[in-house]
Parts: sequence; structure tokens; C-alpha cells
Amino acid sequence: MAEKFDVVDIIRTKRDGGELSTDEIRWVIDAYTRGVVGDEQMAALNMAIFIRDMDRREIVDWTQAMIDSGETMNFDSLSKPTTDKHSTGGVGDKVTLPLGPLVSSYGVAVPQLSGRGLGHTGGTLDKLEAIPGWKADVPNDLMMKILEDSGAVVAAAGAGLAPADKKIYALRDITATVDCIPLIASSIMSKKIAEGTSSLVLDVKVGTGAFMKEFDKARQLAETMVQLGRDAGVDTRALLTDMNVPLGRKIGNGLEVEESIEVLQGGGPADLVEITCELARHMLEMAGVHDADVEEALKDGRAMDSWRKMIKAQGGDPDAKLARAPHTHEVFADRDGFVSELDALALGVGSWRLGAGRARKEDPVQLTAGIEIHAGLGEKVTKGQKLLTLHTETPDRFERALESINTGLKIGDEKPAERKIILDKIV
Amino acid sequence: MAEKFDVVDIIRTKRDGGELSTDEIRWVIDAYTRGVVGDEQMAALNMAIFIRDMDRREIVDWTQAMIDSGETMNFDSLSKPTTDKHSTGGVGDKVTLPLGPLVSSYGVAVPQLSGRGLGHTGGTLDKLEAIPGWKADVPNDLMMKILEDSGAVVAAAGAGLAPADKKIYALRDITATVDCIPLIASSIMSKKIAEGTSSLVLDVKVGTGAFMKEFDKARQLAETMVQLGRDAGVDTRALLTDMNVPLGRKIGNGLEVEESIEVLQGGGPADLVEITCELARHMLEMAGVHDADVEEALKDGRAMDSWRKMIKAQGGDPDAKLARAPHTHEVFADRDGFVSELDALALGVGSWRLGAGRARKEDPVQLTAGIEIHAGLGEKVTKGQKLLTLHTETPDRFERALESINTGLKIGDEKPAERKIILDKIV
Repeated sequence: MAEKFDVVDIIRTKRDGGELSTDEIRWVIDAYTRGVVGDEQMAALNMAIFIRDMDRREIVDWTQAMIDSGETMNFDSLSKPTTDKHSTGGVGDKVTLPLGPLVSSYGVAVPQLSGRGLGHTGGTLDKLEAIPGWKADVPNDLMMKILEDSGAVVAAAGAGLAPADKKIYALRDITATVDCIPLIASSIMSKKIAEGTSSLVLDVKVGTGAFMKEFDKARQLAETMVQLGRDAGVDTRALLTDMNVPLGRKIGNGLEVEESIEVLQGGGPADLVEITCELARHMLEMAGVHDADVEEALKDGRAMDSWRKMIKAQGGDPDAKLARAPHTHEVFADRDGFVSELDALALGVGSWRLGAGRARKEDPVQLTAGIEIHAGLGEKVTKGQKLLTLHTETPDRFERALESINTGLKIGDEKPAERKIILDKIV
Repeated sequence: MAEKFDVVDIIRTKRDGGELSTDEIRWVIDAYTRGVVGDEQMAALNMAIFIRDMDRREIVDWTQAMIDSGETMNFDSLSKPTTDKHSTGGVGDKVTLPLGPLVSSYGVAVPQLSGRGLGHTGGTLDKLEAIPGWKADVPNDLMMKILEDSGAVVAAAGAGLAPADKKIYALRDITATVDCIPLIASSIMSKKIAEGTSSLVLDVKVGTGAFMKEFDKARQLAETMVQLGRDAGVDTRALLTDMNVPLGRKIGNGLEVEESIEVLQGGGPADLVEITCELARHMLEMAGVHDADVEEALKDGRAMDSWRKMIKAQGGDPDAKLARAPHTHEVFADRDGFVSELDALALGVGSWRLGAGRARKEDPVQLTAGIEIHAGLGEKVTKGQKLLTLHTETPDRFERALESINTGLKIGDEKPAERKIILDKIV
């Protein structure tokens, strides 16, 4: 069959700073999915988009074309409203784990389709797999049943959703075209819109440990995504939250499950609880539940009941003891003072090097590897006090992990300024 | 073996407008040749180079790295000096055919390694293959013998010369990164320097039928290439010559051989003779032959003797009658006036559509297809006078060829301004 466009013309247009038409965008995404446009051609086009940018209309068309490249899900047959959350990824960001059960305890369905971690930020599926028996693969009919019954599910996104995005994402990763707002926004939103949720809250992380290092760029990304969601009929909000410091006190798959359970038991670190509750309130409001006292739902065991149902529904044992790593290494304060730096990127890379993350998609992760933080940012410490515990199954990794961690851990004379966790909202 | 660099870092640097170090350039070209860097990664890097440019030092390094990716030739063992010519390609540009024998008739070796045509500009090897028996493949020892004996050879460039350039060129063609001065200059000069000539004259074409449509860009390309040659120890000059109108009166493989023989017999069209003689004088001067009367060498049969030796040495029969196409179509003047437009691109595409050129590397060409021009630019014509004869083996192609030709053929009331052929020189 003769093709409607010549990809070389399309690349040339964008290369020279021109605008791509709706038809050109639809064709190029479809032709790439079919294999008519090659990886080298899409790589050149992505680089041209990276440098020349896309306007509002082009981003909308690009996102829609990626949605149209595959299947879409639909939860209209459920008796309850649906809501979802997406985080752009950060160090220690285990919010999905307590958040789903917390929101679903109000009778709202929370179908969270998640991925695996790549690089220094972890993946939700890797974390939950630290629970004995838990399975990420949930057939569609089972998912509908779980959502109807208990209300929260965390599952691997099916390969049929936005396949163009999967191909393009893999390409961007190896061609230095990842941190580009039109491409990030369209990638995230094509998946989320294809997943068929009625409402969505985006947690856009800002700081050393995040994709977006600067507030202004993060805000621009958040606005672009909110607009894309709303244009597609998904009630969308966004929070901008700090990621200069790890979220909570535990980093690493199994360790993050432990900390999530602390939150579900009414405890847990303040920053993690604050973000979880704020996100839950937005999701509940969009689902029509107003003035929910979500802090109370964490304390009185309602959220924990939902968690137990969610874990059991996917084959997991909520009472099983989580494994701990066989090797630990402790880091102590070498002077008196205040913890003046606790850098998200340095600790994220450290945890990754301990075995908590993967360098390539096909690598396995260590479920028990990671870092426990004993003294948070701004805390007063005395010489010899324990600051961190490093966990790994492969003790030869301590040295390289510490190389990274040491660049981001400082004790100073002055107590640093109070940290603000939630930086901005688009509601 | 651990690699010295991460290609993603190199792409990112150029993407953000930075400068690549000598080591980075050497590594990336070498790693691409070895297959460690993928096509999609080189495509992204080429696009970043296209948009962000390379500076002088980067182009020199890029060129050298491509030379180092393969073998180089060396003619130092010959008893005579070597000189070569390279044209950036134009419509009707058969200059290599009379030029090599003309220059070699002065006892200078002219080892011309040529390619095949792609798109609307023809390839020298395709043209010479119209001569019965002539072969483009010449083993190295035979080439040395021919150069020592008769002095001129036109051969297919071996696959071992600048293999990185071959890979990158194929990629640029499908990713809209062809017309970029750093990439064009390094591509041409890496091959020419690897070919081991002592001196080189570049014929940089400017106009509708050329790569470079604008004089300023062509001049910039010429300067870049001259500098690259000189930096590598090759005595290099450049002419900028007009390519708004086809060169000579015949376009197409066999037809261009016919016209070349006319020149070697002391005749032929004035523009073709002028460029051939000017290029020959520069080549001879660089080879130490001063004040040569090259016009005389065309008239007195010396150049023709060299031609006959050159053709015979590669298996060809210089006395064989050249085939003519079985189908012709004549174009007549529809009014009295002057030929006011005879556009190189329109006629080049027309000839290509008649079968003289190929759309893909693997396509065959028709040796007899092409166009004869009976009335040149500025010539006075009367209604009904024959302007063109089209030749083809496949008469169904006349219609599409004429579609292109008609856009570039005009008869007006005014005689157009005299055309200047040689626009500028870098000597």
C-alpha cells in the first residue's frame, strides 16, 4: 500500500522548526508502530522535537496518536467512580502503596497500572513483589472484580496500551531525548488516558532526585499534562512536590513496603504521610467524596483493611514477614552538628548500586537491598551517632554505593531551613 | 571490554549545543563502525549536529575519525605526481570523463575513485558502463600499473575506504540530515583524503540542480573542504560553478559518454569545455605542470589517445558503437522567442524518470535513457523548432518525465543575460 507521507519530509519540517500537521503526526506514529518508519528515523525526529519543541496542538495530536496505536481500557461498567495517581518518579517514593488502599477505603476504585523501575528511581511493581506471593499480572476480568469488591489494584500495564509509547520510550532512553517536556507529557498522558480513569492526580517531583531539577520546568510539565488530561475528558490535577531529599526514611523495594505498612498503621514519617494524605484528598474530591478525614482513615485501620484485601486479591500474604538483606553496613556521624544535606540523587544512586534498581530492563532487582535513614534532614546529631544502614545481598557493592552516598550526606553547624514538601498545586 | 565513553552523554552534549572533544569524536565514529553505537543513536547525533553545527576543530576530528575507520591508499611508489577532482554532483556533469585523460596526457596520474548515481545527479561509473566491456572494479595492483602506464583510471571506491562514512551516509539519506555542511564536507573529504591523492580540485556546484542552491552556502562548503584537505596535507583548490542549467547538451549515461568523446575530439559544448579546461589547469599546476595549453591537447588528439588507453585498460572497447534507446520523444518550441529557462533540476528529474537514474541504491539504470538539448539557454528559436529529444527503453515513462521537464523549459521574448559558468575559485 502506498504510504500517505514520506517520513523524510516530516523529519525535515520539524528539523527546520516547522509545525507538523495532525495528519502527519497520526501517520508517523502509526507508521512507526507498524515498522514502516524505522528506529533511526524516529530517533532523528525525536531529536528534532527535543531541540525545536512542539506546540500545544502538536502535543495533543502526538498524545492522541499514541493512544490510538493500541487498546484502551474502560471502567464505566463499575458501580463506583475511578481515580488514579501518577508520579514522575523519585527516591523513596512509595506513595502508591498506602494511597491506593486509603482512597479505596472510601468506596472509590483505584486501578493503578504501574511499571518497573529503571535507573535510580524504583518501580512500584518491584516494591510489591517483595511481598511473598504477590503477582503483578492481573487479567482484565479479575481486575474488574477486585475493583468492584475491594477497590484497589496495582497491576502491570498490558502491552496493548499505547504500544507506540513503549517503542518511543525505549528509543528516547538510548538517544538522549528523555528530558523533553512534549515527549514526557505525551508519554505519561497517553498511557494514563488509555488506562481509562475518570480522574487523575499527577505528582510531579522537583529536585536532584527527579527528572525535573528546576521548579519552572516542572511547573510547565505539570501544566502541559493537566491540560492534556482535561482535553481528553479526564478530570486532572497536579501537585509539585520536593524531591531534593528522599521521601520518607526507607529506600529500596522491601524496605519501602515496610515503611508503607507503618503509614497504614497510623505511623510513618511526616513527609510521606503529608503527601499521601494530600494526594488522597484530591483523588477523593474528584471522585465526589468531599471533606474526607484521611488522616483518621490511616489511624483507625480502615486503610489497613483495604491494604490487606488488595494484597490478598493479588495472591500476596499480608501477614508474611518481609525478608531482610543478609549484609548491612552502618554509616555514623563523624562530628556533632545538624544533618545539612541528604541528597535524593546521591542516596538514590547509592541504593541502586546496592542492588535495589536495574541498569537495563532485563536486569533482576534485589528485593531486600536499600538504605534506611536514621537521621533526617535538619536533625541534630552527635559524633558516632548512626545515620544510615545500607542493605544488600552482595556486600562487594558497599564501596561503590558509599562513593555516591558520601557526596550527598553532610553534617553542618547550622540547622538548615525548614523543608517545604508540597511546592505548588494545579487544581 | 569497557567502553571509554557513553554515547548518550555525547549525544546530550551536542544536543545542548556543546562541543565534542577529539577523543569523544574518535570514539563515537569507531564505536559506530564496530556496531557498539546503534543506527538510532548515530541518527540522533547527526540530527543534533545538523541543528547545532560543529566548529572547525570538530569537523577536522570527525573527518580524521572517518578516515581512520578504514584503509587508506598510497600512491607514493608511483614515478609521477597524483591529482584528483571531485564534483559535488550536477545534471549533465560528465567532466570526469574527458578530464582524467586530458590531465594524464601530461604524465600526471589521475586515480579517480567514483560512485554510482543516486537521485537526479548521475554517477560516473554508471556513465562509463555504457561503453561495452568497461569494468569499474580494478584491483589495487592493476590500478598502480594503469596509473604508471597510461595515467588515468576511474574505478569503484573499495568498501575498505572510510567505512564509517558509508554507514553514516546511508543513515543521513533516510533521516533528513543530508544537506549539512559539516557532514557533507567531512563525508567528501574523508573519502578523498583516504584515497591518498597529493592534490585535489573540488568542483562545488551551485544552483537548482545541485546540493547547494545558494552561493553563500556553497562557498562556505568549499572553504570548509579546502581547509580540511590542506590540514591533511593534500594540496586542495576549489571552483564554484553554475548548476542552474545542465552542463553541456546531453544528459544520461550513454549520451554523456558521447558528448565526452566530442570534447576529446576537440569539439563539444562551450560550457563543458570551459570547466574541463579550467579544472585541468588547476590539477596540472598542483602537479607541477605550468602553462599547459590544455585546449590544444584536446584538439591535437593527445587527450583522446589517453582516453583510448584508459578505456582499454579497464576492458572497454573505445571503438564500439554506443547503444541508443529504442524510444524517443521530441519536444518542439510552441512559439518564437529565446530559450529563457532550461532548469537543471527539472531536466535532471526528467532524465531520472526516463530511467537514467535510480531511486534506490539497488535499482538498475538504463544506459541509453536521457535527454538531448538541441537549443541551449539564450538561443533564438522559432515555433516548431526541435528543442529536446527524450530517450528511454520504457516509453510509458515519457509522460512523468515531461511533467518535470515542462516546469523548467520556457521560451520568452527577451534574450536572458549571459550565463557565467565559473563563479568563484579558492586557489
